[in-house]
Amino acid sequence: MNSIEVCFTPELIHLHEVKGKLVVVVDIFRATSTMVAALAHGVTEILPFADLESCRAMQVQGYLIAGERDGLTAPGFELGNSPTAFLEGNYAGKKLAMTTTNGTLALDKSKCAAEILIGAFPNLQATANYIQSRNLDVMIHCAGWKGKFNLEDSLYAGALVQALSGSHANQEDGAIAMSSLFAQVNENLPDYLAQASHAKRLQNYGIEADIAFCLIRNRYKQVVGLAGDGALRVIEG
Amino acid sequence: MNSIEVCFTPELIHLHEVKGKLVVVVDIFRATSTMVAALAHGVTEILPFADLESCRAMQVQGYLIAGERDGLTAPGFELGNSPTAFLEGNYAGKKLAMTTTNGTLALDKSKCAAEILIGAFPNLQATANYIQSRNLDVMIHCAGWKGKFNLEDSLYAGALVQALSGSHANQEDGAIAMSSLFAQVNENLPDYLAQASHAKRLQNYGIEADIAFCLIRNRYKQVVGLAGDGALRVIEG
Repeated sequence: MNSIEVCFTPELIHLHEVKGKLVVVVDIFRATSTMVAALAHGVTEILPFADLESCRAMQVQGYLIAGERDGLTAPGFELGNSPTAFLEGNYAGKKLAMTTTNGTLALDKSKCAAEILIGAFPNLQATANYIQSRNLDVMIHCAGWKGKFNLEDSLYAGALVQALSGSHANQEDGAIAMSSLFAQVNENLPDYLAQASHAKRLQNYGIEADIAFCLIRNRYKQVVGLAGDGALRVIEG
Repeated sequence: MNSIEVCFTPELIHLHEVKGKLVVVVDIFRATSTMVAALAHGVTEILPFADLESCRAMQVQGYLIAGERDGLTAPGFELGNSPTAFLEGNYAGKKLAMTTTNGTLALDKSKCAAEILIGAFPNLQATANYIQSRNLDVMIHCAGWKGKFNLEDSLYAGALVQALSGSHANQEDGAIAMSSLFAQVNENLPDYLAQASHAKRLQNYGIEADIAFCLIRNRYKQVVGLAGDGALRVIEG
């Protein structure tokens, strides 16, 4: 059996061994859900940026630019951080440069992993299947909210720990806690998360459709990973 | 209603507002359980130290010295970190200087709180009752294990959130997650925690009696808090 562990926020990543592991970066509301949706609906690649300026600068190179801060589209950006913007395939064939409050930071702090995947509920099972084709210890890196633990990312972590129970031993405290909690919540996930602080924040922005989308399970067979050139692409499916 | 939140490790305390709050410091295996046991069985005060040397220096002032690192009694110390050492009242009337791997650090990092209590299962309900007599927002500061999340401290946090549900609104993600998990585990706490990484570490030291003691609920009516002079004392009961 391989091992699996959960890092609840990028603020704790220095306490985890990243090197040699397969790291799954998770920012359910909404960065990684948006990445999966965009690539599943025809966007050819996504370049992630930690800061707004570097991201904005990609526009002159023909990239569509997506920038979000604190849940809102950043000034001067074409797109924010909405997965539902991609569902009609309006951006198929385009390249996307993207920066978000938490998700792109978690990605940045996972850089020395053996392999990096992007986790989201809509392609949970496809991601689990792909991981089981690799022989690597797994670390699930939750983006959290401004450094703090959040419910939606850690519940995804619990769901992935559960999906990998046949291949990855559930022995680390964070993984144990979250797989138990996910087993308890399971089908009530949307209602349970309606209590979560971030969901409440997002509800204030009138993006209920985004929230609902982010909690759909297993709509896509596409697995998303970070390629050697620093771009996120569909690596399987 | 007052608010309640959970900080899973001292590594995240800078993201929480401590000032003005009642902070409950928790290190179930075993620092805070030992503090409660010692004071409930007649130790008159405990001076907590972050480092071994300052702690050891208190011996010449007549303090009994207790030092633990990585689960073992530190070299040259009279006592380690075992709550059961105090249960016969052998140290009644003594003053104790104490340093532990995680617990005393969490205490140190809680210093600017309005009030600091020591949390443990053996005096859970007494602590909850005392908190309800104060009109303060609560932060539960889990000591964790070397900066990481651990199951036993966070499950205590969940138990305390539940015990305070009549007075402190459960709206923060860490508090929501852990009160749900505690409700699920509840009577199976010892078996559930037998999976936890720290319990496994301690089992290797042959201290099953300590672990069993740390999970007993509501044996004591004594509430333990940090006094103005920096000593831990029974403040009620």
